[in-house]
Amino acid sequence: MSRPASNLQIDSARLWGTIHETAKFGATPKGGVRRLTLSQEDKEVRDWFRKACEEAGLEVHVDALGSIFGLRRGRDMGRPAVGFGSHLDTQPTGGKFDGILGTLGALEVMRTLNNAGIETEAPLCIVNWTNEEGSRFAPAMMASAAYVGDFTTDDILSRRDAEGVTVKQALDGIGYRGDKPVGFQKLGCFVELHIEQGPILEAEDKTIGVVDSGQGVLWYDGKITGFESHAGSTPMGLRRDALATLSEIVLAMESIASKRAPNAVGTVGEAVIAKPSRNVIPGEVAFTIDTRSADGAIMDALDRDLRAAVAEIAARRKVEVKLDLVWRKPPTHFDPRLIAAVENAAESLGYSHRRITSGAGHDACNLNTVIPAAMVFVPCKDGISHNELEDATQADCAAGTNVLLHTVLALAGVAS
Amino acid sequence: MSRPASNLQIDSARLWGTIHETAKFGATPKGGVRRLTLSQEDKEVRDWFRKACEEAGLEVHVDALGSIFGLRRGRDMGRPAVGFGSHLDTQPTGGKFDGILGTLGALEVMRTLNNAGIETEAPLCIVNWTNEEGSRFAPAMMASAAYVGDFTTDDILSRRDAEGVTVKQALDGIGYRGDKPVGFQKLGCFVELHIEQGPILEAEDKTIGVVDSGQGVLWYDGKITGFESHAGSTPMGLRRDALATLSEIVLAMESIASKRAPNAVGTVGEAVIAKPSRNVIPGEVAFTIDTRSADGAIMDALDRDLRAAVAEIAARRKVEVKLDLVWRKPPTHFDPRLIAAVENAAESLGYSHRRITSGAGHDACNLNTVIPAAMVFVPCKDGISHNELEDATQADCAAGTNVLLHTVLALAGVAS
Repeated sequence: MSRPASNLQIDSARLWGTIHETAKFGATPKGGVRRLTLSQEDKEVRDWFRKACEEAGLEVHVDALGSIFGLRRGRDMGRPAVGFGSHLDTQPTGGKFDGILGTLGALEVMRTLNNAGIETEAPLCIVNWTNEEGSRFAPAMMASAAYVGDFTTDDILSRRDAEGVTVKQALDGIGYRGDKPVGFQKLGCFVELHIEQGPILEAEDKTIGVVDSGQGVLWYDGKITGFESHAGSTPMGLRRDALATLSEIVLAMESIASKRAPNAVGTVGEAVIAKPSRNVIPGEVAFTIDTRSADGAIMDALDRDLRAAVAEIAARRKVEVKLDLVWRKPPTHFDPRLIAAVENAAESLGYSHRRITSGAGHDACNLNTVIPAAMVFVPCKDGISHNELEDATQADCAAGTNVLLHTVLALAGVAS
Repeated sequence: MSRPASNLQIDSARLWGTIHETAKFGATPKGGVRRLTLSQEDKEVRDWFRKACEEAGLEVHVDALGSIFGLRRGRDMGRPAVGFGSHLDTQPTGGKFDGILGTLGALEVMRTLNNAGIETEAPLCIVNWTNEEGSRFAPAMMASAAYVGDFTTDDILSRRDAEGVTVKQALDGIGYRGDKPVGFQKLGCFVELHIEQGPILEAEDKTIGVVDSGQGVLWYDGKITGFESHAGSTPMGLRRDALATLSEIVLAMESIASKRAPNAVGTVGEAVIAKPSRNVIPGEVAFTIDTRSADGAIMDALDRDLRAAVAEIAARRKVEVKLDLVWRKPPTHFDPRLIAAVENAAESLGYSHRRITSGAGHDACNLNTVIPAAMVFVPCKDGISHNELEDATQADCAAGTNVLLHTVLALAGVAS
């Protein structure tokens, strides 16, 4: 890194301004953002973003799934571009930072380099990935998944929302089905800045999370079939209570994950009693389990322990429990060279930092399966995200963007 | 009891025939009955029942809440009538026996006495109580509750179903708002034959349950407020999981009731997660509790232990739990003289029998608050009721009706 670039800082007020300026697209009364992917609000923020990229001198392209790429030429165009960015779509009652910080932070990096007149060796490319959230169309992170070849473009284009609208129709509806094939823009690596979405950095008073891994995920669908009977006239010893069975499973999952904390989490997020009634013993309960770890061996152990616990509980209570694994996503281990670049940037900028695992999935996790990737986390208030209460400080957002800037410069190299 | 009466038996085939003949009013494809109170199907079975009572020579009257009374004169009309009967309405997916056996069994007793030419000292009166089930209008057992003075007639007439139809409108709609004031028919005592609705008689291979008590009931509405957060990024130790909290409460209720089995039961019948999602830690759960005992001191202990357990769980998990007692019904202790009459009848008829507590509420429990009352139980298959699978054998139905017959004869006396 050349000497002038090493002192470079982004413009904190300008970054903060863009975050709040774009928050008007889909603003909710409680201070959040509702900007479902490919909605009218998404079109508005996309138009704003494309114009801002063009004004920053970037070459803007849109691919067949609507992802927006803004290229800043490097001195050596034979080198693959250093990619960075995130997403501008939100959850139905989302906040102003999830995805947005990483995308507008990337724009701020470009503006800062322009103002400083810095040319990089490798080209730089910022990206706004379509549909990270997955609230309107499944799966989440579909554009980056297609980019790395997990799905074909046609498959993703045919996915439908709850109203039956396809991705293709939605893209055409807002004019964002681009002319570039998915994957046209080669990236040599990818860095994503994001709020933590958890409470660890705040609890430990660290400014920067150097994300070295992303949790693998196991998703199960479960169904308990006990026996529905009269709450008054069925003696305790003759019951086959599906909700009491679920209760044991919930606590077993909690205990199995806690035993491996901080390297595992486990949650029963949904539980629905069939025909619930105040004076009827629940006979059937459907539920889902989400358990995660960044360690593949621990994931195997979570699966094994969970199945053993469920089998023991079901046999003892004389109920049937079906447990189907519906999704298994392996852990992400980010690239050591990129992790070191993030860590060096945080250290040289004097920010407190720690290595951290991403609990949530991100586009960077998809990209890491084919190119080196890494992430930068900043704290968010009370660990809240996917919520209108989501919040982060201007100072932390600026710090994360400075780390992104210097990571990108280190990876691309500054032309002398 | 005079000698000829002592050998008297009801006509098992005729009883079985009426049970199946009337099951056509509201018959469901799966062999059950859907006969919501004051519906068209209820009108049809009422018309059938009124005609059968008239053909049996009974003086039929309908009160202001639609309950049907069929009086058989005694030799001494100065004595109050011996009342017996039950209800002809069913749950939305009910069976052919709950309530129906007691009502048609009462009719069969009258027919048997007619055929044998037996006159009783006291008059006899069979009753079909309106809305025992409470599925369409709340509260359940409302007509017998009004009969004993727990509600005014006008109050009950103004209750509305889910479509906004009042009891008064529904009664008028099927022509069963009678001209007799509630309570016009004085009863000296009341006996109700019913299926057990639990598994005890079947499990112990007993034909007759001599019901000596009915459980008191405590109903609670509960709400847990924890903190909704991301299932991936919230460490186990920093969670405030409302569903895990509920799970502990469910198991605490189970344990508190089991400790006092067979003298208590406890059930969480409803549990609803606010905004459930597979990858979100539940932040809010609403639930209900139903706990019962036939012993007032145990009811107090159940309430005390439950509140203590909930307070401990809430404090340890740093969540808020609201627990509101919404109904408290004291236990029923049936009349010793009537219990003895039922027991003597079962014994003299040679049926296996045992004392038993009613887990469910019945019109007889309401009546017992002002006049001596008792109940006769017969087994039902697998303890199932409030279900199209509800079943009982012809032999057991006949046995129960024979016990009803001889109990009634003992209470009324046979004119010599």
